[in-house]
Amino acid sequence: MAKNITIAVDAMGGDRAPHMVIEGIAQARTLFPNTKFLVFGDEAQIKPLIAGFPELTSASEIIHTTDYVSSDMQPSQALRKGRQSSMGLAIQSVKDGAADVALSAGNTGALMALAKFMLRTMPGIDRPALISPLPTLRGESVMLDLGANVECDSNNLVQFAIMGAAYVRTVFGLSRPTVALLNVGVEELKGKDSIRAAADILRESRHLPLDFVGFVEGNNIATGEVDVVVTDGFTGNVALKTAEGTARLVTDLLKRAFQSSLSTKLGYLLARHGLSSLRDHMDPNNHNGGVFLGLNGLVMKSHGGANAHGFASAVASAIDMAQNDITRLIADDLNEITHADDQRGAI
Amino acid sequence: MAKNITIAVDAMGGDRAPHMVIEGIAQARTLFPNTKFLVFGDEAQIKPLIAGFPELTSASEIIHTTDYVSSDMQPSQALRKGRQSSMGLAIQSVKDGAADVALSAGNTGALMALAKFMLRTMPGIDRPALISPLPTLRGESVMLDLGANVECDSNNLVQFAIMGAAYVRTVFGLSRPTVALLNVGVEELKGKDSIRAAADILRESRHLPLDFVGFVEGNNIATGEVDVVVTDGFTGNVALKTAEGTARLVTDLLKRAFQSSLSTKLGYLLARHGLSSLRDHMDPNNHNGGVFLGLNGLVMKSHGGANAHGFASAVASAIDMAQNDITRLIADDLNEITHADDQRGAI
Repeated sequence: MAKNITIAVDAMGGDRAPHMVIEGIAQARTLFPNTKFLVFGDEAQIKPLIAGFPELTSASEIIHTTDYVSSDMQPSQALRKGRQSSMGLAIQSVKDGAADVALSAGNTGALMALAKFMLRTMPGIDRPALISPLPTLRGESVMLDLGANVECDSNNLVQFAIMGAAYVRTVFGLSRPTVALLNVGVEELKGKDSIRAAADILRESRHLPLDFVGFVEGNNIATGEVDVVVTDGFTGNVALKTAEGTARLVTDLLKRAFQSSLSTKLGYLLARHGLSSLRDHMDPNNHNGGVFLGLNGLVMKSHGGANAHGFASAVASAIDMAQNDITRLIADDLNEITHADDQRGAI
Repeated sequence: MAKNITIAVDAMGGDRAPHMVIEGIAQARTLFPNTKFLVFGDEAQIKPLIAGFPELTSASEIIHTTDYVSSDMQPSQALRKGRQSSMGLAIQSVKDGAADVALSAGNTGALMALAKFMLRTMPGIDRPALISPLPTLRGESVMLDLGANVECDSNNLVQFAIMGAAYVRTVFGLSRPTVALLNVGVEELKGKDSIRAAADILRESRHLPLDFVGFVEGNNIATGEVDVVVTDGFTGNVALKTAEGTARLVTDLLKRAFQSSLSTKLGYLLARHGLSSLRDHMDPNNHNGGVFLGLNGLVMKSHGGANAHGFASAVASAIDMAQNDITRLIADDLNEITHADDQRGAI
């Protein structure tokens, strides 16, 4: 039987907070009627908004604070001043066991710093990773790390592979996700030592519930060649933002193209129904739900520019992960790989 | 007065070689009537093709060889077996001073290995870099290194900045290009030590003919925030391929969208004139001409999938760089920075 999930929501994070957040959880609530929300933020602003959604009144509890983390606050500042903010208190409620997962559309660097400091990494994980779904030609894949760690060694990459596969099993429902390490295509170079060493470990880990297929290149991210793309946080952050920038470039050029003459404008009117499916597929709101994996507790990041629909889809992912207890899944897989190492060591 | 340029052409490299190559140089020849071509490859195939372009007969000389570098040849194999190939002999002619620049649409890894081995890096440059123009919202920018070096230190990055700026001054004709280092956006991390150290050196190098503006993120590549994006070869290769993959994803989804109904098909017919300008802007043939900078001699790489028009535009870049003597420009800028260091050291 599905467990009833409690979500700690930072009502003050995101470009259109708190309206967007409250509308988002209201939308999610209609789909997941057993979910409860702890809503952290300024009661004077939040209470009237919740009153607009009768389905929320019994399902939500406001925890009042006027402190909040601004979008330009440095992570170091957030660590000093943000513990009593709506973001900090939401994370604290996960630590205390009052909520199953914390969700914020606020400042990513601050959220990462606070989550790492307050929850600490789980046993067997050296560094947490930021993971997010991405649109591909085949549907969706995930990539990690997207910026939590600039430099990664081979063990970090192996741990990311395990965490990424656990995410895909939980959120996408695939029993044996395909996993690859992001590498460069120029043959002679064959990538960095850390990547080759991680590949060696993963190739020998056939007992894990994932299918390691070797290396992919940057262009294979968008084709959806594999379910999980594993890389260090520097490369992952650059690749994610390069993909976002390129998608915007093409769609901006497309808009210009449609505006260029009467004929193209008419063409747009006729084609717009079809074009909306393209827009839907590329819309970050439909692939919303970055997660910090590897901590003693679940913390999710929604896009800062998300709309209510986008925030609701982040809530849906949060429920999935909490119900499937992704933290335990990761711990089990880590045990597998450690146990296998012990056996090899004993021979 | 413009110098007459001689280009060493590998006629056997590229998906549609040698036809595409010969047609490409014929197109370029009509625009640059004083250019001469040394055409390396199988005379039996090349001679009849050249006969089809009367303007080429007096402007080209065939240097016969049946050896060629296949697209799947490893760089190490190319170093052993490729010296007498059409690619190897084209590079050798640059070394011997018979040609001003070598141009190939063949195997990138092999071309890089042969060029580096045969020409060696120029004084003051520790590692060559692969640079290429990219389409942006503002027009074109360049990025380097795109895959020649997996690991780079701060001096490598500074040298790349100088070489990239020299490329933009030569090929785009800008007197003081804007230059930035590619970095991640998560503030706390502030990127790698090597990147921060390179930024410190570039900030102090105001005497160089470039405008160093600090850091950019992945999404700023496509917006064309700066003229020159500097990064290590691993990140650059991933970013370039991620951008190519994303552009293809969006255009593939666009094609699907236009095929989805009678109305969208009709819309496409009306809009296609405008859409062709989008296609032109994103077409790699219109941004063709990767160059290995930092060697004692110029070697250019055309896209393997280039058509004749694309190859002709690579020839045009090659002529630009050879006429402006980009190798000397880079040497002068390196002198500037070394000289400034000496002066600081003497104080």
